[in-house]
Amino acid sequence: MSVVELTKQLIACPSITPARGAVFDAVEAMLTARGFTIDRFAAGEAPDGPVENLLAWRGEGGPHFAFAGHLDVVPPGEGWSADPFAAEVRGDLLYGRGAVDMKGAIAAFIAALDRLEQGRGTISLILTGDEEGPAIFGTRALIERMGERGLKPDLCLVGEPTSVHRLGDTIKIGRRGSVNIWIEVPGIQGHVAYPTLADNPIPKLVRALAAIDAVHLDDGTDWFQPSNIEITDLEVGNPATNVIPARAKARLSIRFNDLHRGDDLAARVRDLVLAEAPDVVVTPRVSGEAFLTEPGPLSTLVASAIRTHTGIEAELSTSGGTSDARFLSKLCPVVEFGLPNATMHKLDEAVALADLEALVEIYAEIVRRALG
Amino acid sequence: MSVVELTKQLIACPSITPARGAVFDAVEAMLTARGFTIDRFAAGEAPDGPVENLLAWRGEGGPHFAFAGHLDVVPPGEGWSADPFAAEVRGDLLYGRGAVDMKGAIAAFIAALDRLEQGRGTISLILTGDEEGPAIFGTRALIERMGERGLKPDLCLVGEPTSVHRLGDTIKIGRRGSVNIWIEVPGIQGHVAYPTLADNPIPKLVRALAAIDAVHLDDGTDWFQPSNIEITDLEVGNPATNVIPARAKARLSIRFNDLHRGDDLAARVRDLVLAEAPDVVVTPRVSGEAFLTEPGPLSTLVASAIRTHTGIEAELSTSGGTSDARFLSKLCPVVEFGLPNATMHKLDEAVALADLEALVEIYAEIVRRALG
Repeated sequence: MSVVELTKQLIACPSITPARGAVFDAVEAMLTARGFTIDRFAAGEAPDGPVENLLAWRGEGGPHFAFAGHLDVVPPGEGWSADPFAAEVRGDLLYGRGAVDMKGAIAAFIAALDRLEQGRGTISLILTGDEEGPAIFGTRALIERMGERGLKPDLCLVGEPTSVHRLGDTIKIGRRGSVNIWIEVPGIQGHVAYPTLADNPIPKLVRALAAIDAVHLDDGTDWFQPSNIEITDLEVGNPATNVIPARAKARLSIRFNDLHRGDDLAARVRDLVLAEAPDVVVTPRVSGEAFLTEPGPLSTLVASAIRTHTGIEAELSTSGGTSDARFLSKLCPVVEFGLPNATMHKLDEAVALADLEALVEIYAEIVRRALG
Repeated sequence: MSVVELTKQLIACPSITPARGAVFDAVEAMLTARGFTIDRFAAGEAPDGPVENLLAWRGEGGPHFAFAGHLDVVPPGEGWSADPFAAEVRGDLLYGRGAVDMKGAIAAFIAALDRLEQGRGTISLILTGDEEGPAIFGTRALIERMGERGLKPDLCLVGEPTSVHRLGDTIKIGRRGSVNIWIEVPGIQGHVAYPTLADNPIPKLVRALAAIDAVHLDDGTDWFQPSNIEITDLEVGNPATNVIPARAKARLSIRFNDLHRGDDLAARVRDLVLAEAPDVVVTPRVSGEAFLTEPGPLSTLVASAIRTHTGIEAELSTSGGTSDARFLSKLCPVVEFGLPNATMHKLDEAVALADLEALVEIYAEIVRRALG
C-alpha cells in the first residue's frame, strides 16, 4: 500500500485530541502486518487522562532506533473547503486535518519499513494519542512503559513537521522550555470614595508586571534564540465602577532556552511580585524544560540522509513551540524531522504527494544508516 | 400623622431603584393633603429610563426654599433579620430599607411642614425615583421641569444621610466629582513561541497604568481631600496559555476635587496611555463635576438650626461619594443634611425614633429661618 493510501487511512479516522480507538486500530493493523509486536494501553485519570498510547517494536538487541509521534490532531475549526476528514487528493495535494501534523509522517515511516532489508537491531514506534492536549499521560507514560519492558532506544527521531519552506530544510535539535505562571494579588474590597478603607490590589499587580516585563533574561545562545516572557492574561472581573476590587490576577508564559530552568524562572518572578505585594500567590506550572541534542552523530546522520535524497543542506534549529521530544531527550539523543509545516493547525491543512514520497525515502535512509 | 408613621408608609412601598408607582402615590397623597400642587412625570428612555419624578410646590414668590431627595432605595440583599420592607419598630429603632437613605428624611420634611405657620414665599419638593441608579433622567429632568414652570429656588437642602456619629454632626457643603475611564489597548494576536509575529497589548497597558498610578493629582484644598485615581478593573479574557492576546482593557475611577474637571482628567489619562500605545481607545464618562457651596449664609443657617435643637456644632464636610446635589448646585446654593448614615446600604438599615423626631424640628427650623 502506498504512503498516500496509508496517510488517507489515518486522516479518515477523526482523531481530535485526545485520540482514541479507530486511528489506533488502523495503525495497529499496519504495524502487525509488518511484523511488529504491539502494546496498546490507556494511561492516567481525569481530568488529563485516560490517554490511549501505542508502543510497537520489531527485532531485538542493539542498535535500537525509535520513531516517535502522535495520532491526535487539533480541532479542524470552521471554514474548510471540504470535509477535513475526507482525505481528498486535489491536484498535487492531499488535504485533511493531520496531513502534515503528523499523520503523513507516521504513514511515511510505516511505508519506509517496506523499503528496509531485514537487518540487525531493533526498530520501535512510540505513538501517543495526546500530544496536542495536556500531554501529561502520553509520551511520558510510553517512556515509562518502555522502561518496564526493558526497551531502551539508542537514537530517536520525532516525525514532527519541522520543514519550513521545502522538505528537508530544517532539523530540530532542541526546543525551548515552557513555564506558565499564575499570579494572584489579594486586596481589600471597598468603595472608591473611601480609598483609605480599602486596599486596591491592581496597582501592586501592575507595578510587578511592569518590573517583570522589563526583565532581560538572556541574549540567546549558539543554538537558542533569547528567552522570552509574555504576559498572556489579566483578570479582575469587577463589574462595579465604584468598587475597589478584592483581588487581581495575571498569567505569564515564559519560553526559555537551556540557560534556565522553569522553577528558577518561577522563583525569580515570585521575588519580583513579592517586592510589590507580600501576600501574593504565585503558581507556576512547568510544561517542559529546554532540551538540546548537541549537533553530533544523530543530526549528521539525518542531515546526510536528507542531502542524499533532496540535495538540500538542512539547517539545525531550536525554534518554535514545545514538542514531546522534550520528554524523549531524557532517554537518548533525539532530533525532529518531518514535513513542511506551513499549513499545520490551519484550515485546509494539506501535504504535497511528492513530499510524502520523498519523506519515505529519507526515513528509510535514516533507519538504514542508524542500524547499519 | 407622626413622622414615624409617615416613614413606615414610605418604607412599606418597596421602591428598589428605579422607584415607580406606589411610593410616589404615597408621597403624592401626603403632599396633596398639605396643600401642595403636584407634577408627576416620567423622563427618558431605555436603557437609563424612563424614570418617575415628582415635583411639588406650595405658596408663591420669594424666597423659595427647596427640599430635594430620592424615593428609590438600593436592593436589600440577603440576610436581613426581618422583611426589609415590613417597616418594623423594635426597641428604639425603625428598621427597613430606606429608613436612613432617605425615606426617613423625606418623612421628616413632610412632618416639618405641619410645624410651620402659613407664611410668605414658596416651598418645593424635588423628588426623583432614580438617584441610586444611573441618575441620568432623575434630578436633572426635575431641574429642567422647574425651569419650564418658572420655579427657581433660592436655597436648596438635600436630605441625604450626612450625619456620621450623631444626628447633626455633619453638613455637606460640596462633593467630589467623579469620572470613569475605560481604556482598551489593541494588539496583534499570536503564538507565545513566535513573539516577533505578534504584538502583545498587555505590557503597554501595564506600563501606562503604572504611570497613571504614579500621578499625584493634588494635596487637597481647604474644603476637599486630595483627588484620587483608582484602577478598578483589568480584563483580557484569554483562556489559552500559549496565545498572545489581541486586546487588553482596564477601567479607572477618579474622584476629584474642585481643582479639576472630569474632561481634563480624562485628557491627561489619554496622554499617559498614548505615550505607551498610540492606537489606544480611551472612553471617559464624567458622572459629576466637583461642586462646592462655599461656607456662607446657607451653611450658617443650617448649622444654627442644628445647634438650636441639639446643641451640636456641625462640621462642614465634602467627603464621600457623589449625590444629586451636584446637579442642584447649578441652580442655587445647596447643602446636604440628614440622618446618621451608619446603616445606609447595609443589612438591617435602621433609624432611631428619636433622630426622626429631632430631624422634624431641625428641618422646620431651617425652613422657618429660610423663609423668615
